[in-house]
Amino acid sequence: MKKHIIVIAGDGIGQEVTAVGKQVLELIADKYNHEFTFDTALIGHAAIEATGNPLPDETVTKSKASDAILFGAVGHPKYDNDPSAKVRPEQGLLGIRKALGLYANLRPIKLFDELLSASSIKAEILQGADILFFRELTGDVYFGEKGRSDDRNTAYDTMIYSRYEIERIAVKAFDAAMTRRKKLCSVDKANVLESSRLWREVVQEIAPRYPEVEVEHQFIDAAAMLLIKDPKRFDVVLTGNLFGDILTDEASQIAGSMGMLASASVGDTTGLYEPIHGSAHDITGKGIANPLASVLSVALMLDISFGLKTEAEEVVSAVDAVLKAGFRTRDIADKSTPSENVLGTQQMGDEILRQLKG
Amino acid sequence: MKKHIIVIAGDGIGQEVTAVGKQVLELIADKYNHEFTFDTALIGHAAIEATGNPLPDETVTKSKASDAILFGAVGHPKYDNDPSAKVRPEQGLLGIRKALGLYANLRPIKLFDELLSASSIKAEILQGADILFFRELTGDVYFGEKGRSDDRNTAYDTMIYSRYEIERIAVKAFDAAMTRRKKLCSVDKANVLESSRLWREVVQEIAPRYPEVEVEHQFIDAAAMLLIKDPKRFDVVLTGNLFGDILTDEASQIAGSMGMLASASVGDTTGLYEPIHGSAHDITGKGIANPLASVLSVALMLDISFGLKTEAEEVVSAVDAVLKAGFRTRDIADKSTPSENVLGTQQMGDEILRQLKG
Ligand SMILES: CC(C)[C@H](C(=O)O)[C@@H](O)C(=O)O
Ligand SMILES: CC(C)[C@H](C(=O)O)[C@@H](O)C(=O)O
Repeated sequence: MKKHIIVIAGDGIGQEVTAVGKQVLELIADKYNHEFTFDTALIGHAAIEATGNPLPDETVTKSKASDAILFGAVGHPKYDNDPSAKVRPEQGLLGIRKALGLYANLRPIKLFDELLSASSIKAEILQGADILFFRELTGDVYFGEKGRSDDRNTAYDTMIYSRYEIERIAVKAFDAAMTRRKKLCSVDKANVLESSRLWREVVQEIAPRYPEVEVEHQFIDAAAMLLIKDPKRFDVVLTGNLFGDILTDEASQIAGSMGMLASASVGDTTGLYEPIHGSAHDITGKGIANPLASVLSVALMLDISFGLKTEAEEVVSAVDAVLKAGFRTRDIADKSTPSENVLGTQQMGDEILRQLKG
Repeated sequence: MKKHIIVIAGDGIGQEVTAVGKQVLELIADKYNHEFTFDTALIGHAAIEATGNPLPDETVTKSKASDAILFGAVGHPKYDNDPSAKVRPEQGLLGIRKALGLYANLRPIKLFDELLSASSIKAEILQGADILFFRELTGDVYFGEKGRSDDRNTAYDTMIYSRYEIERIAVKAFDAAMTRRKKLCSVDKANVLESSRLWREVVQEIAPRYPEVEVEHQFIDAAAMLLIKDPKRFDVVLTGNLFGDILTDEASQIAGSMGMLASASVGDTTGLYEPIHGSAHDITGKGIANPLASVLSVALMLDISFGLKTEAEEVVSAVDAVLKAGFRTRDIADKSTPSENVLGTQQMGDEILRQLKG
């Protein structure tokens, strides 16, 4: 199989973990006789520094012409502490999601058995939890009109959804539920928000088309609580852009660490695969970031964009095997991990590659 | 001391738990020779049924004329599943918050030692956690303009903050931090939202007035994760209405159960004291709801509105003693709780009263 992949490593640890993800793609190509070609593109702070623009046109053009995008992270503390900055790294990420029509963000949350003890949540609460989030990614308060008034003393953002935006992601979520445990929880704040009432209305309209799927609606506050109290009650979770952002970061604690969570952003065109962790400037350049979320993002790419199920499963199995062998990055190590088993980013990558070579 | 208290029990288990809260107030009055007088008022579904209005004028008038409000809960599943309902119970709660100018919602999160095992989070992660949330309560996407357009196929809400709204709650939060561990974490989504950028700007401006307070800013997604990963890192958390709604419900897992969490809503006039749990229609009328959040709300009232520190501490100690004696409601019981120690709402109330009688 011939595929062309754009690597957009971006900022902070994005560079470090994406390097490992790419090595995994190269090894899989080699082993299974695929021809994967690569190109790189700029985004975020890195792109601002080089071009003044967090999302250069070239990045969009190259991405559209590719078969898949391996993404790192965007962000820089410089902008976070400067609320008046006009140009920001995040505009790159939001811009590419919008430009490529990547309206469905899939975030699978599944704990590798070996990491049961790495979580702050009790093992018996976690064991067996397996959640697939569908986060809407190109609408909501992220993209509604925003601005200042009253001599800059008032600031607003518009939380806004249209029927077709809710429909298309809801259908994807219901379809996925049919291939899983046939449960879907839609999360909104319909007791307060008009956009949530439309959200609920549309989900209620679609539900009868999937009579086998058991549907429930939860308010975001209750969902944030239930996710920790009883993660096993969830199968597919369907939610808007903002609520999905919050819930999936929170859910990282179910998977032991944010460093383990991969995501797929899909929609009209080329899919984008990215760890859910951000640029993590506090550990950038130290070579200690966990590359497994990038490796698992590669598995999602192989599966969803290329339909290479066997290859995808092999990558997931390699992660499992490396964890079973006792190797950890710092974020998933615990008191019982011997210090020689606490690996850096590339060392962990090497263990994955060793497993894949077989 | 003479005080006039309005009891607004509202919907669902609000009725059951508030009855216990009121008994505690009566006993405290008796024991300490205060004169507490009571009146009741309608809100929510109960008010809609009786008057068609979720917040009758009389409720506002009585509340304004009182010294404190003991509040239950609002909500009814009937409206949740009908996104097109024009009149909703929640309008009563949002309306009274706005009408009384209750812009600061204090939600203390502290685990009673005896409940360490009731949480889904590991004991070693929880032990020593002690967080005080300041949730802004009369602004944000809750109160901005909302509506439909495009033949009702598009729905929007406006997330909006003005400088003075952020200032007045930030000052309260900083003041509180000075009386505690002198740490303040402000939560926003300033990498995406303009209203959050104003939020951060204002908090940054106020911070230098409190040089002893260590300030950090976290994005809501990261905060939702850190709250579970390492609750001990937080002291005072300052946040907007929507993010505060989500984080405090999530934080209930730190306190073992939502049934344990009290809140105080204060501002320009009479303070309102309410459990953070909702109307919980699934258990309404069964007499099994946990009344301790209402009892702890009474403690907050005694302390904040009446300045009765000794009385407030005695109520908290009574809760502690009853838990130490091994009594539990269903929500905070675990495998090790003997079944005869699992009490109903009024039985638990009776144990509290017995403790207070001494
Ligand atoms: C970096 C930021 C804009 C982004 C988001 O909020 O979507 C991130 O948190 C994510 O979840 O991918
Ligand atoms: C009932 C609802 C409107 C309310 C809110 O969202 O504020 C509740 O969840 C709360 O936290 O008090």
